[in-house]
Amino acid sequence: MSHRVAILGPTGYTGLELIESLLRHPSLRIECLGSARDNPPRIDAEFPRLSGRLQAVGVNPQCEKIDHDAIAKRCSLAFLCLPHEAAMTHAPALLKRGVKVVDLSAAYRLLDPAVYAAAYGHEHHDAAGLEHAVYGLTEHARDRVRSARLVANPGCYPTAAATALIPLLRAGLVDRTGIIISAASGVSGAGRDPKPNLHYPEANENFSAYGIGVHRHQPEIEQTLRMLGGSADQGREASALFVPHLLPVTRGILETIYATPAPGVTTEALMSALREAYAGERFVSVRADAPTLRDVQHTNQVHVNARVVHGRAVIIAAIDNLVKGASGQAVQNANLMLGCAEWEGLG
Amino acid sequence: MSHRVAILGPTGYTGLELIESLLRHPSLRIECLGSARDNPPRIDAEFPRLSGRLQAVGVNPQCEKIDHDAIAKRCSLAFLCLPHEAAMTHAPALLKRGVKVVDLSAAYRLLDPAVYAAAYGHEHHDAAGLEHAVYGLTEHARDRVRSARLVANPGCYPTAAATALIPLLRAGLVDRTGIIISAASGVSGAGRDPKPNLHYPEANENFSAYGIGVHRHQPEIEQTLRMLGGSADQGREASALFVPHLLPVTRGILETIYATPAPGVTTEALMSALREAYAGERFVSVRADAPTLRDVQHTNQVHVNARVVHGRAVIIAAIDNLVKGASGQAVQNANLMLGCAEWEGLG
Amino acid sequence: MSHRVAILGPTGYTGLELIESLLRHPSLRIECLGSARDNPPRIDAEFPRLSGRLQAVGVNPQCEKIDHDAIAKRCSLAFLCLPHEAAMTHAPALLKRGVKVVDLSAAYRLLDPAVYAAAYGHEHHDAAGLEHAVYGLTEHARDRVRSARLVANPGCYPTAAATALIPLLRAGLVDRTGIIISAASGVSGAGRDPKPNLHYPEANENFSAYGIGVHRHQPEIEQTLRMLGGSADQGREASALFVPHLLPVTRGILETIYATPAPGVTTEALMSALREAYAGERFVSVRADAPTLRDVQHTNQVHVNARVVHGRAVIIAAIDNLVKGASGQAVQNANLMLGCAEWEGLG
Amino acid sequence: MSHRVAILGPTGYTGLELIESLLRHPSLRIECLGSARDNPPRIDAEFPRLSGRLQAVGVNPQCEKIDHDAIAKRCSLAFLCLPHEAAMTHAPALLKRGVKVVDLSAAYRLLDPAVYAAAYGHEHHDAAGLEHAVYGLTEHARDRVRSARLVANPGCYPTAAATALIPLLRAGLVDRTGIIISAASGVSGAGRDPKPNLHYPEANENFSAYGIGVHRHQPEIEQTLRMLGGSADQGREASALFVPHLLPVTRGILETIYATPAPGVTTEALMSALREAYAGERFVSVRADAPTLRDVQHTNQVHVNARVVHGRAVIIAAIDNLVKGASGQAVQNANLMLGCAEWEGLG
Repeated sequence: MSHRVAILGPTGYTGLELIESLLRHPSLRIECLGSARDNPPRIDAEFPRLSGRLQAVGVNPQCEKIDHDAIAKRCSLAFLCLPHEAAMTHAPALLKRGVKVVDLSAAYRLLDPAVYAAAYGHEHHDAAGLEHAVYGLTEHARDRVRSARLVANPGCYPTAAATALIPLLRAGLVDRTGIIISAASGVSGAGRDPKPNLHYPEANENFSAYGIGVHRHQPEIEQTLRMLGGSADQGREASALFVPHLLPVTRGILETIYATPAPGVTTEALMSALREAYAGERFVSVRADAPTLRDVQHTNQVHVNARVVHGRAVIIAAIDNLVKGASGQAVQNANLMLGCAEWEGLG
Repeated sequence: MSHRVAILGPTGYTGLELIESLLRHPSLRIECLGSARDNPPRIDAEFPRLSGRLQAVGVNPQCEKIDHDAIAKRCSLAFLCLPHEAAMTHAPALLKRGVKVVDLSAAYRLLDPAVYAAAYGHEHHDAAGLEHAVYGLTEHARDRVRSARLVANPGCYPTAAATALIPLLRAGLVDRTGIIISAASGVSGAGRDPKPNLHYPEANENFSAYGIGVHRHQPEIEQTLRMLGGSADQGREASALFVPHLLPVTRGILETIYATPAPGVTTEALMSALREAYAGERFVSVRADAPTLRDVQHTNQVHVNARVVHGRAVIIAAIDNLVKGASGQAVQNANLMLGCAEWEGLG
Repeated sequence: MSHRVAILGPTGYTGLELIESLLRHPSLRIECLGSARDNPPRIDAEFPRLSGRLQAVGVNPQCEKIDHDAIAKRCSLAFLCLPHEAAMTHAPALLKRGVKVVDLSAAYRLLDPAVYAAAYGHEHHDAAGLEHAVYGLTEHARDRVRSARLVANPGCYPTAAATALIPLLRAGLVDRTGIIISAASGVSGAGRDPKPNLHYPEANENFSAYGIGVHRHQPEIEQTLRMLGGSADQGREASALFVPHLLPVTRGILETIYATPAPGVTTEALMSALREAYAGERFVSVRADAPTLRDVQHTNQVHVNARVVHGRAVIIAAIDNLVKGASGQAVQNANLMLGCAEWEGLG
Repeated sequence: MSHRVAILGPTGYTGLELIESLLRHPSLRIECLGSARDNPPRIDAEFPRLSGRLQAVGVNPQCEKIDHDAIAKRCSLAFLCLPHEAAMTHAPALLKRGVKVVDLSAAYRLLDPAVYAAAYGHEHHDAAGLEHAVYGLTEHARDRVRSARLVANPGCYPTAAATALIPLLRAGLVDRTGIIISAASGVSGAGRDPKPNLHYPEANENFSAYGIGVHRHQPEIEQTLRMLGGSADQGREASALFVPHLLPVTRGILETIYATPAPGVTTEALMSALREAYAGERFVSVRADAPTLRDVQHTNQVHVNARVVHGRAVIIAAIDNLVKGASGQAVQNANLMLGCAEWEGLG
């Protein structure tokens, strides 16, 4: 059985990745590419790598203006690859018309509108949506996603950090505070708009930290660790220092996480907790050695490893920021919301 | 309906690419990974990026020793990703047992064993195989491939060059001699074995020509242009100077081809010939602008463009060397040989 | 003895390269960094890699507004790293005040103002300057540069092409027409302003041709071959098709040049002509093997090699586009103009 | 005044960097290139980028066999770019003959031979040398280096870590234990021999941690922090977890260091301590913003920044691993040992 879906804001890197995933998908079909531009482009003019490939499977490459009623008539679900503020406008309009929504922006990720406003620099204006949105870290929210009408697709850095840490926090194997997340991302994570520091001769052969302790994903990571990281007092504390770095690669995130192990905790205890938590999970691999970026690029996989060394827990997680960190997890969530097999369209 | 296939020599880059393609394939199923090593490895130990992904679709990640009888019992087709000489041994053994073969080595590409011996430095020892092998440049050999039992999968550089030039030669729009093919390939084309000039600090930020006029693909290109490039005297002449360069990228080939246009030939004439030749072709895009490497990476597409400028025809073609230049075209050919839709498993 | 110089427009990549060269220079001293901006920046704020390094040798890192009189009082020579049109304004103003000028823009490279206007899209407005400017391809213009007051520093692509071809044309070893220059440059050649196609995720792992036959360096190359390439009728003809490509590296140019050898010409004849022409030249190496980009990066060297293969002359030249292709050759020229040893400050 | 020096083991990346530095040096002159190979190569055959550049300054490009007497006759100092064990043989032989030695291997860095044996997997066999060797972290050992006959040139990672941490430890601003050094290095740090994980297609677009807590530089870092990091009880404790990562770049090291600030310590306190410690230092820049790799590549600079955020001290240091992390600091030390200005030959 086939479901028709819309992609709103398809001209960024997450839009492209989503289209490529859906071109391989056996049961979802792109019905509408909705653009906020005055003159919606052909998507294959934006991305020549799509030339001929949409038509070959009967998809119209012409983007159209966003029309909620028209989408509601034709589509059962919409992926929103829009700016945060635009998402808050379009999500409720679509939901009201019965269209399910997977939102790839940060609009519905933070439970507290005040935290949102502090991180993103503008007020939140869809408090109602916030209340019923489900945070779609799929492996840890499967049942809620299945019945959700609005899924807040997690951020890329938080996806890697939470996947690595949740089982260890739940098992009480590492301290809930004082966690350090030293992360590195490829440049596609910064979007498709040219900027001086992302100009090729500047980013090439370079490496640097940015947003040290003040990155927008810092509160999302802490919230996720609090909410999904277990503990008797229902996640009241959980603190992490998040320090991202910019890597001279196109895609991929690798996070090296330092935590304080509980007394007596060994490498094997950490690894067992991870293996147990992710037994049978198709998109999480608990590896015996250190994950690398290349091993997860162009896949929806999370690779994770943990060890105790010199008295520290060192936990490493790798994902493709555009796939498991964005469009892949979005498809994974949509699959659940629409009753498809969770892994359709994903590698 | 499902067909079971074997991959012999799966531990190189073309093997990995083939596996990834077959993991997405709706009707081909990997039944056997055959290794020439004394101790066949687990393929997910060789390539950790495959961790868990084979088991998820019921494929055994353990490589086994190559056993022709065992393969014949379980598989209808084998992909050979072996060294040239090994291919000449295993192909006839499998064919004799009724297993169809797509050979990704150069063993069966050159019609004349003497030309083969000169290019590859050793005698050809399967003349019988040479006689019935079909050169699998799919778009130009579809019917022959469909009924073939042994397909010689074309080389990466020749695939791009021939796709670009054949329609122009057939239409008599450019001279058959004096063609210059200035090509550039990513490093994966040189295989997975470390070598001094492919050591990261040597290949990174570098660019250079190699094998100038003496590369092994030179005779393959000339043979293909002669055989498939039309002309009354059945391809008696056709000469090209082939100059490859090594690009600091992992994958992709871009060829800039210089030819002498026939008198009065315009850009539009070249483009029309290409558009006509490839109308309806799912894996060839005739572009109005210059192709780029990125646009074809991780796809089975050929992007091609041609123009007349300053009295020269300048024709540009781009492919992914590991996909259309190797494993993708191999799947495309296998699909035809097994009666599947040509595009299954390919993007 | 020490000479004080000015750099006007120091905030681009050629400006930075020039500063780094002059920091190592035993007899030239940066006296003034002149910026066209309303609020001239500190150069070490623009380029943090200069932090502390100017002060260490007594150079003021603060850029100042361009003031011709002030420059004339303090400096004997100015390097112009300005836009083409700005160069035509500042060069005559400085020359009038007795300041020698090395202009790194294209303003004074093309002898014919009509050709200039066609290539650069605006009228030339310093015809007087054009008349006495010396085209500073140092190895072929040493004496004229020595006595010049205004040197037009050659373009990056033309420097490599001309260095490779001039000796062969002069010796009559290759045809003066029908030359094909297939060139590839690092991204720094496109300047420091961010552009969509130079955004890291677009340029990385990519390769493509651009400006095919219509690049601004096409007429400069043809003019140089005509003027410096010898021949009885004083360079009346000389035609070349110039096809540049964009490489995913920061710096360096490699040109693979295809030409028709005169009857009977051998590899050895080509190599002998090159060796003879460049015997004793400190910045030209005639190599027996194919030059590579890495071997010339961060040096003022030209590496060149030539061979006859399959009836074609294939000539390869490599330079660093920011050094021999811009700031290095500018220092080389300035050294001659000021009576320093030609190689001071250069590696 | 000119000093003649030898380079033993010049065919690796540190050898090349040393040669390039000495080619620019006003008072040191390469007199001997000593190779341990049976057939010593020409250095310009090993590194074509040196073609013609040694002869231009009167240096013989031919490597010679290592002959201690011959070196002693001609050279006042030798740089050892040899394997650790070879260094222990050649250093005493040269010292005995009156030749000063800067050893770039790890042979003389660790004070305790047992620690050395544990880290490097073989016994130390020059205990006498160990006793008088001076650890050449120049800025913190200037006087001792000046009078040293044998300098142990520090490791690349330890140079960055120690430069960043010593002033903060001495001032008591951060805890001496529990320090985490999350570091990333370009591939040249792994040497010039090809290895599977350094093969271009493997290292490109990749990033991963290695040697987590077990890297050979771990004891060197801890020893340096103990010895040079001050404290009343003369550096008895000081513990750090060192986690290096491999970056897809050719050169450069960036270290992000996490430490526990003493109560009440602010960003300004950290920065003041660094500024004070390095006031007037030509090769250390205390930056207000986060250092980047590009800003130090091809220079002998250390860029450092520190801040307190979310209760942690985050200190970032960047160097070029081949310059300040190896050959540049070696020249800096040699300059002191020979009475030259410390900065000669260095940028």
